Amino acid sequence: MNTPQPSELAYVPFVSVANMMRLVHSLGVDRFLSDLAAYIEEDFKRWPEFDKTPRVASHSLEGVIELMPTADAELYGFKYVNGHPKNMKEGFQTVTAFGVLSSVSNGYPVLLTEMTLLTALRTAATSALVGRYLAPKGASVMAMIGNGAQCEFQALAFRALCGITRLRLYDIDPAATAKAKRNLEGQGFDVMACSSAQEAVEGADVITTCTADKQCATILTDNMVGRGQHINAIGGDCPGKTELHKDILTRAQIFVEYPEQTRIEGEIQQLAADHPVTELWQVMRGEVPGRTDANQLTLFDSVGFAIEDFSALRFVRDKVAGTAFSEPLDLLADPDDPRDLFGMLTRAG
Amino acid sequence: MNTPQPSELAYVPFVSVANMMRLVHSLGVDRFLSDLAAYIEEDFKRWPEFDKTPRVASHSLEGVIELMPTADAELYGFKYVNGHPKNMKEGFQTVTAFGVLSSVSNGYPVLLTEMTLLTALRTAATSALVGRYLAPKGASVMAMIGNGAQCEFQALAFRALCGITRLRLYDIDPAATAKAKRNLEGQGFDVMACSSAQEAVEGADVITTCTADKQCATILTDNMVGRGQHINAIGGDCPGKTELHKDILTRAQIFVEYPEQTRIEGEIQQLAADHPVTELWQVMRGEVPGRTDANQLTLFDSVGFAIEDFSALRFVRDKVAGTAFSEPLDLLADPDDPRDLFGMLTRAG
Repeated sequence: MNTPQPSELAYVPFVSVANMMRLVHSLGVDRFLSDLAAYIEEDFKRWPEFDKTPRVASHSLEGVIELMPTADAELYGFKYVNGHPKNMKEGFQTVTAFGVLSSVSNGYPVLLTEMTLLTALRTAATSALVGRYLAPKGASVMAMIGNGAQCEFQALAFRALCGITRLRLYDIDPAATAKAKRNLEGQGFDVMACSSAQEAVEGADVITTCTADKQCATILTDNMVGRGQHINAIGGDCPGKTELHKDILTRAQIFVEYPEQTRIEGEIQQLAADHPVTELWQVMRGEVPGRTDANQLTLFDSVGFAIEDFSALRFVRDKVAGTAFSEPLDLLADPDDPRDLFGMLTRAG
Repeated sequence: MNTPQPSELAYVPFVSVANMMRLVHSLGVDRFLSDLAAYIEEDFKRWPEFDKTPRVASHSLEGVIELMPTADAELYGFKYVNGHPKNMKEGFQTVTAFGVLSSVSNGYPVLLTEMTLLTALRTAATSALVGRYLAPKGASVMAMIGNGAQCEFQALAFRALCGITRLRLYDIDPAATAKAKRNLEGQGFDVMACSSAQEAVEGADVITTCTADKQCATILTDNMVGRGQHINAIGGDCPGKTELHKDILTRAQIFVEYPEQTRIEGEIQQLAADHPVTELWQVMRGEVPGRTDANQLTLFDSVGFAIEDFSALRFVRDKVAGTAFSEPLDLLADPDDPRDLFGMLTRAG
């Protein structure tokens, strides 16, 4: 049989993992994170323009697979992402992801990209962006509890956006801490490996929790958290998966992405459904205050929202335009006469 | 910089449009449709095993973009599909689609495939499968109103599964009818081009409506439909998009895929929320009757449900295994140490 040559319309630019790594290195990780944070901030500041819905989750005993769609008037984006804490022991990653950006006006995808790396980068960029609004002034020390795949990205983003240079690491698996310490010292950080979470939080301005167990864990208890700190809670992002003791929540000022989703998935699933929270988009627009004094305990109850992925997809689309970091993928059938799909098929035979 | 070579785990088998066409021709369209219908029937018969949700739709003035997920205990599948009736005039297709099948146990995708062609094939296979349960005995004549991209696939499926050999075509655009007539005569059908919907339905055993306008249209009025016919209503599949006059609905026995979705999107959006409908999976399992007598008017209020796409994804996965009809796509990052995503990135630099 002959080999049909798809038309231009049939091709969707695809960014593979290898090309995403090339893109990151072409910009440098720090600039990638800072520029990406600017895209995220831009989209948070126009929050009401988005079509928003809590992500669609399919839970199993071993993990979750989620679809995270959102759209503005011009673009539609979604991410596929899984979360399987037991994967790591079997040589697989806890989280893998890919995503698509499409034209709202005709429904055609304009970008397909790996998002395993991109999710790590956007999660870190979001945390640090929020840190810029909420971390205490002059913050330079961050405790990091949970030293898995997300850890280094968080550290780099907090240095690029908030000036954090000293890290205090703790993980229940010392091998994870050793891995993160090695990587982060290679990036010029002053790194202390700690033997307990209690030790890690001593003197920290910011506390990042990023653990993977799918359970209601208590990574931080109330006595471990002082006044004036900012907690960046990443790992509690699923029903039945939390990291903080409830007492911390009741005395912290809680900041969230999208309350409808966070109340299901975040630390605040432990609280009453009407417990007051502050929406970050309103803080970024200057409509409500962020941190109001040096003694306040602030908490970013991060679960990850579709708009952050949308920003990341927009960012990648803009950055790969005109580069060799994408390849054309024959994803869409494109008959000469759009009604003659069958004719296209028979002519290929 | 060096070129990182992704490991086996990073690759997802991808079926391009060109490869989907090769797969169809390697089996023959008739066998593809029959075998696919068998997969769909198998999944309808185990309906209660699936995690089901109405599709997640993002509506705009010009169309809709939808995500359609479902899962059983082993596999998770979803389809991305758009519907933009105005596309055709601009040289784009009304419907394009792609889909992914994943392992529930670790969340890793096992197949990425084009689904524009596959959706046309699975929609036709589903219609004809339902026709086998509901069409009058000895049916040989089908009226087809709306002769766009889906038309030929419906005809082939109804011949392969139900023995339909004579077609009566009508479309408001005579060029569409001419296109379908040419294609279908080439496939050995006895085809009559009609000058009105009224003329097309004369003497038909089965009436297929498959029009694209996003509005409450009246493609069929009550006086056009006799006793004993089976209506296969494809085009009414969106809020505000219907094809049949309400009077037809009130005298027909109505069969649906997933009531929770059909009541939002199907012809029955015109009826009260508790209007009785019969679920097809129960008919296929023999738990409730399908057509009970020769004079009964039966209606398949088709909107397309995620389980049909899941069946199609399973089918394609099985058929491309061991063939050259897929290519490996570097979609998933795969560090040697799953926790060392950052190390993978820096070593690639």
